[in-house]
Amino acid sequence: MEFTIKQIATLLGGEVKGDGEGKINMMAKIQDARPGQISFLSNPKYEQYIYSTQASAVIVKKDFQPKKEVATSLILVDDPYLSFTALLEEYHKLIKFQKNGIEQPSFIGENSTVGKLIYRGAFSYIGNKVVIGDNVKIYPHVYIGDHVVIGDNTILYPNVKLYSGTRVGKNCMIHAGTVVGSDGFGFAPQEDGSYKTIPQLGNVIIEDDVSIGANTVIDCATLFGDSTIIRKGVKLDNLIQIAHNVEVGKNTVIAAQAGVSGSSKIGENSMVGGQVGIAGHITLANNTSIGAQAGIGKSIKEEGQRLLGSPAFDIKEYFRVYAVFKTLPGMNKRLKELEAAVLKESQSEK
Amino acid sequence: MEFTIKQIATLLGGEVKGDGEGKINMMAKIQDARPGQISFLSNPKYEQYIYSTQASAVIVKKDFQPKKEVATSLILVDDPYLSFTALLEEYHKLIKFQKNGIEQPSFIGENSTVGKLIYRGAFSYIGNKVVIGDNVKIYPHVYIGDHVVIGDNTILYPNVKLYSGTRVGKNCMIHAGTVVGSDGFGFAPQEDGSYKTIPQLGNVIIEDDVSIGANTVIDCATLFGDSTIIRKGVKLDNLIQIAHNVEVGKNTVIAAQAGVSGSSKIGENSMVGGQVGIAGHITLANNTSIGAQAGIGKSIKEEGQRLLGSPAFDIKEYFRVYAVFKTLPGMNKRLKELEAAVLKESQSEK
Amino acid sequence: MEFTIKQIATLLGGEVKGDGEGKINMMAKIQDARPGQISFLSNPKYEQYIYSTQASAVIVKKDFQPKKEVATSLILVDDPYLSFTALLEEYHKLIKFQKNGIEQPSFIGENSTVGKLIYRGAFSYIGNKVVIGDNVKIYPHVYIGDHVVIGDNTILYPNVKLYSGTRVGKNCMIHAGTVVGSDGFGFAPQEDGSYKTIPQLGNVIIEDDVSIGANTVIDCATLFGDSTIIRKGVKLDNLIQIAHNVEVGKNTVIAAQAGVSGSSKIGENSMVGGQVGIAGHITLANNTSIGAQAGIGKSIKEEGQRLLGSPAFDIKEYFRVYAVFKTLPGMNKRLKELEAAVLKESQSEK
Repeated sequence: MEFTIKQIATLLGGEVKGDGEGKINMMAKIQDARPGQISFLSNPKYEQYIYSTQASAVIVKKDFQPKKEVATSLILVDDPYLSFTALLEEYHKLIKFQKNGIEQPSFIGENSTVGKLIYRGAFSYIGNKVVIGDNVKIYPHVYIGDHVVIGDNTILYPNVKLYSGTRVGKNCMIHAGTVVGSDGFGFAPQEDGSYKTIPQLGNVIIEDDVSIGANTVIDCATLFGDSTIIRKGVKLDNLIQIAHNVEVGKNTVIAAQAGVSGSSKIGENSMVGGQVGIAGHITLANNTSIGAQAGIGKSIKEEGQRLLGSPAFDIKEYFRVYAVFKTLPGMNKRLKELEAAVLKESQSEK
Repeated sequence: MEFTIKQIATLLGGEVKGDGEGKINMMAKIQDARPGQISFLSNPKYEQYIYSTQASAVIVKKDFQPKKEVATSLILVDDPYLSFTALLEEYHKLIKFQKNGIEQPSFIGENSTVGKLIYRGAFSYIGNKVVIGDNVKIYPHVYIGDHVVIGDNTILYPNVKLYSGTRVGKNCMIHAGTVVGSDGFGFAPQEDGSYKTIPQLGNVIIEDDVSIGANTVIDCATLFGDSTIIRKGVKLDNLIQIAHNVEVGKNTVIAAQAGVSGSSKIGENSMVGGQVGIAGHITLANNTSIGAQAGIGKSIKEEGQRLLGSPAFDIKEYFRVYAVFKTLPGMNKRLKELEAAVLKESQSEK
Repeated sequence: MEFTIKQIATLLGGEVKGDGEGKINMMAKIQDARPGQISFLSNPKYEQYIYSTQASAVIVKKDFQPKKEVATSLILVDDPYLSFTALLEEYHKLIKFQKNGIEQPSFIGENSTVGKLIYRGAFSYIGNKVVIGDNVKIYPHVYIGDHVVIGDNTILYPNVKLYSGTRVGKNCMIHAGTVVGSDGFGFAPQEDGSYKTIPQLGNVIIEDDVSIGANTVIDCATLFGDSTIIRKGVKLDNLIQIAHNVEVGKNTVIAAQAGVSGSSKIGENSMVGGQVGIAGHITLANNTSIGAQAGIGKSIKEEGQRLLGSPAFDIKEYFRVYAVFKTLPGMNKRLKELEAAVLKESQSEK
């Protein structure tokens, strides 16, 4: 697991400037790197570090022009950030232990089928009539209910829980403790003040290439035949709440501890910040960007908006408003003084 | 699992208007329904759909007067929504696989007793001196500590964790990943800046007819003999925090990601919105309604209040205030202009 | 488990005033205590209760001077609160069932070593090359990935999940359902609007004397060799999000449902309130105190600040601002009236 700078440059389709024979055995941030490590420079904000870094090599953009002398070797590429993540991926394949085979005891019900090359950890549970694709990794304590379908190359980390009827696509990753398909929060008020539970008969569909963090919850749809849907390429962070009948559009990213209430639809290519709350039964246009802790109470019809506040409005306007908000005691004082001045004025005229 | 419209009307105690022989095999929303499906009309907002729906039958209120021609059969009842949910429940019983018996391996400690007709999933764990009623469903990976008591007909979904001493009533439903009875957050500050853990010796009592969502946490009370109490009929959503010694009053509903701090008491028949935070050591009157993301810092003494904001106050007033808040930059400008005008005035007089 | 008041006084190094022969069998709050129970008086706010309490004994400060007659026995000590918690601890040792030994089935991989006197619950999973110290309690359904290291006397409650490479110190306590070491939320945007997963290769280090609540999530660091770090003595509550590469300083306390975004550093001896959100890539000085639901968007450089609001500023100033905020409709009205008055004035002069 040690490569020369030249070998790495070849792997990345880049060109070496400086010594190509130095040995690299680890990756690190440019400000922290030590000899034997490789780093990258993408954000100009970090350029200062390239003149003092101890890294043996730094991946930089083809047209990078150093302003001072640089002691480290450079690898010139089109996109340093992408090259660095490509390197991380290669490294990942080398160091992460690839689990395989079946550990015992594990449980599998009747009429369930599993693909090739799968890992089924000890204490994992697979119900009846489940269909699991090739190269799926099922870590210990995972629960897979009846009639669940899971696509190829999907990874379920320890203790993921998929209720009956859940469908998960290919190349998905669901982290530990996440619950998919629990009952939507539906109760009919009764005359005596109590609530009757409305049976939740729908399911959850997670399309391909979706990543979900740890301890997140996605509820099933209410009616039989209906689904809560997480579209292709969506990335959900940890501790997120997705209520019944929600649809999250393609390639949308939601940060930790955000919550989406029942039956709302979030558009494609959107970004939802941490701890954001989205009300029920609303629709958000594509390319919406919502700042952390915002509250969205109404549908967003125009695409490309950036919002903040609770209830939220345009983020730039929000910061303008908030700047004045912080001066409110002063404004109030000025208003009082003005009132006094005007009063005095009008009295002196009488 | 196919019934005639007439059979369904009889089941609901309703009356058919139109064809009673059509076959029904599924339920759907009025705007989405296809032939062979049944829907309902309760909210007048959806009346438009009854004139174009493809549903084979729609459940409507007895006194419903169509404004145009209706192609679908009608079933006339007192309360269409209640009838529809009754139908859902019947359907639920038919389609949901009823788990029964004991799957292996599962664990049960010493001196524990279980009732009749129970389901104990594989990898479920029952400690010592536990008492479990009849018809209880214990899904895989459930953990039940020592001295726990569980009433009849309660369902514990996969991986629910009940710490030692927890008491759960009859007809409760606790969803996957929820933790009941973890230690309250109690630490005594020491002179050197560190904290000493205060042992948490109480338990949690969950009364009858309580529903709890997924990945919620309810801490135990601090002192031995004391309890954190969730009263009869309470409905808690997902990812909620209930701290030590809290009491949630009868038939109160709390939405996802809300948090209640230690020793606070929430009244009966109240509604707490999503992501609401409630401070510790306060008491909220019955019938309090708290809007999403609000923060409650003080006791609420008067019943029936509706609150919003952080710290929260009357919701209508909050919206009035917030409307002016959004105009703050304009107000500030007007104030400046006025100051200039008054200054000019007073100078011109000298 | 019954002691005389005198025995308890001796245990606490205190002195009895009143009857020392009364029997004590439980602890309780001063306002709730019944005969046979012992309580304490530390906060002067509760002094009123000492004149009416039914407790058989109350622990008070050495120099306590009753203003009226006191029926209960007193135990005089230096610090009543510390004495009471010491008593709670003793009681805790007596009543809490000490789990020991290995329950079956449980799983342990290759080349893993465990210390003396440990408890390994049924369905617990220990991977390969794991090192576990003495007197460690591993409850049922705990998952311990490969290469994990756990120090002496640490307790892992049911279903704690430690990803590969996690390091946990001595005397730690991690509550049920908590996830340590899940992937950081790192995705590189691609030209077609999709995201590529950036492999997360770092780990999590939890130092000694750390307590973590239930269903909390701590992500691993991004780069190999890097760590998300929870320093000695930190106390984390339930449902908290700690993102990749975060560092939480020594003896800092974080309340439930708070979230810390990637690469931020929180100082020592700080307090973070419930539902607080902290942005990424910022640094907070030591002794920072953040009120519930606040949002911290920028680094805090000065120590000892107390903050509230979103974005947060000085807490006292926040309350001053908020008091005026609530009067905004009135202020707006006053401003309009003033505008009208000034306009009239200026017109009358022409």
